[in-house]
Amino acid sequence: MTSSPALQHLLVVGKKIVAVGRNYAAHAKELGNAVPKEPVLFLKPTSSFVTIGSSIEIPPPLESLDYEVELGVVIGRRARDVPEKNAMDYVGGYAVALDMTAREIQASAKSAGLPWTVAKGQDTFTPISSVISRDIIPDPNDVELWLTVDGVIKQKGFTHDMIFKIPFLVSYISSIMTLMEGDVILTGTPQGVGPVRAGQEIRAGITTIPAYDILFHVRNRIVGHHSPLR
Amino acid sequence: MTSSPALQHLLVVGKKIVAVGRNYAAHAKELGNAVPKEPVLFLKPTSSFVTIGSSIEIPPPLESLDYEVELGVVIGRRARDVPEKNAMDYVGGYAVALDMTAREIQASAKSAGLPWTVAKGQDTFTPISSVISRDIIPDPNDVELWLTVDGVIKQKGFTHDMIFKIPFLVSYISSIMTLMEGDVILTGTPQGVGPVRAGQEIRAGITTIPAYDILFHVRNRIVGHHSPLR
Ligand SMILES: [Mg+2]
Ligand SMILES: [Mg+2]
Ligand SMILES: [Mg+2]
Repeated sequence: MTSSPALQHLLVVGKKIVAVGRNYAAHAKELGNAVPKEPVLFLKPTSSFVTIGSSIEIPPPLESLDYEVELGVVIGRRARDVPEKNAMDYVGGYAVALDMTAREIQASAKSAGLPWTVAKGQDTFTPISSVISRDIIPDPNDVELWLTVDGVIKQKGFTHDMIFKIPFLVSYISSIMTLMEGDVILTGTPQGVGPVRAGQEIRAGITTIPAYDILFHVRNRIVGHHSPLR
Repeated sequence: MTSSPALQHLLVVGKKIVAVGRNYAAHAKELGNAVPKEPVLFLKPTSSFVTIGSSIEIPPPLESLDYEVELGVVIGRRARDVPEKNAMDYVGGYAVALDMTAREIQASAKSAGLPWTVAKGQDTFTPISSVISRDIIPDPNDVELWLTVDGVIKQKGFTHDMIFKIPFLVSYISSIMTLMEGDVILTGTPQGVGPVRAGQEIRAGITTIPAYDILFHVRNRIVGHHSPLR
């Protein structure tokens, strides 16, 4: 990979992951959700990042996690109240990322009106590639994302099918919270999400730039200590 | 205040705020919520911190925000799968904090099964004191929190009324996500929450240690740029 150390540094200094839910109409429908009128935002902690060479861990008593391949937008400099027309000036690069989700926990949280933190925020729940330079993706609206499980294609979709496009998302999120250098926006997943279990392997990437493909093995988490409730 | 630069540094290096909802039975009831069987966790971004000298900002078109005074627990070192009996070894200090909440936005999010990010995560929504050394709070289970609006007492409550106590919370959260140096746990609010409007002033603190009282003025946010939807 050709990423510079300066670009890779972004993921170290970043403080938050702002994820967008239901941003592809076909995926919203496959989960039985309405297509949103404004972006659905949730936070993932940076402690959920995992980079190539480590595994995705399924926390007991769960037996599977859902994969969601997403284009990550890495913020290059502080952004607050940024107009849509200038929004791309604040983008420092991109990444291929997975938004791993404990779907049953998310379903209970949704029906109880509770946050998605435990469903989305656990360690290893955000596998991510190294940062891809902006030059390599001249048009982020024309990127084909793909994902395979054990070599079988599960997700394939173009970012031009996003309901809310990247300049809009940067502008909108920056009107709610200051985006900092290294923060990552996960821009939503195309259709085809589904479960993975221990022993399976996930590959994902952007069709035209194989140098940034990611590969992660899935295993059960070995818990060092059981908290009384878990 | 007597805080050392090393202690204050914690809030700079921290990457996340993990907030606990409904952790005092009387407050859960006042909002019509069931007392939870396990902690309700949500994330706030560190971009929502505001320190003394700046204002709390109400984003238009809102005309008020709810205050919630909380004891903040500042993590001193990396914590993962920490047993409850050792959990206090990972605490680096405390803080007086407010968990400012756009209650109407939270209510719509709850009924739609959506995250609380916009209701809880906007800039200036986490006013916080400087970090209080552990020596100053020998027993965090015996702290009286108070809050006034324009000099009128609104909240007063003891941390011994928490449903889930601090060692349990540190252990439980660390079983879900790695806590890093400088991360902050907001431990929930006692009863008496309510709205503040522009022009009002909030004071809050811990009864026995007035040196860490916080004072914030509330004003309407002047928006630099309107995103299309807002
Ligand atoms: Mg997603
Ligand atoms: Mg964060
Ligand atoms: Mg609160």
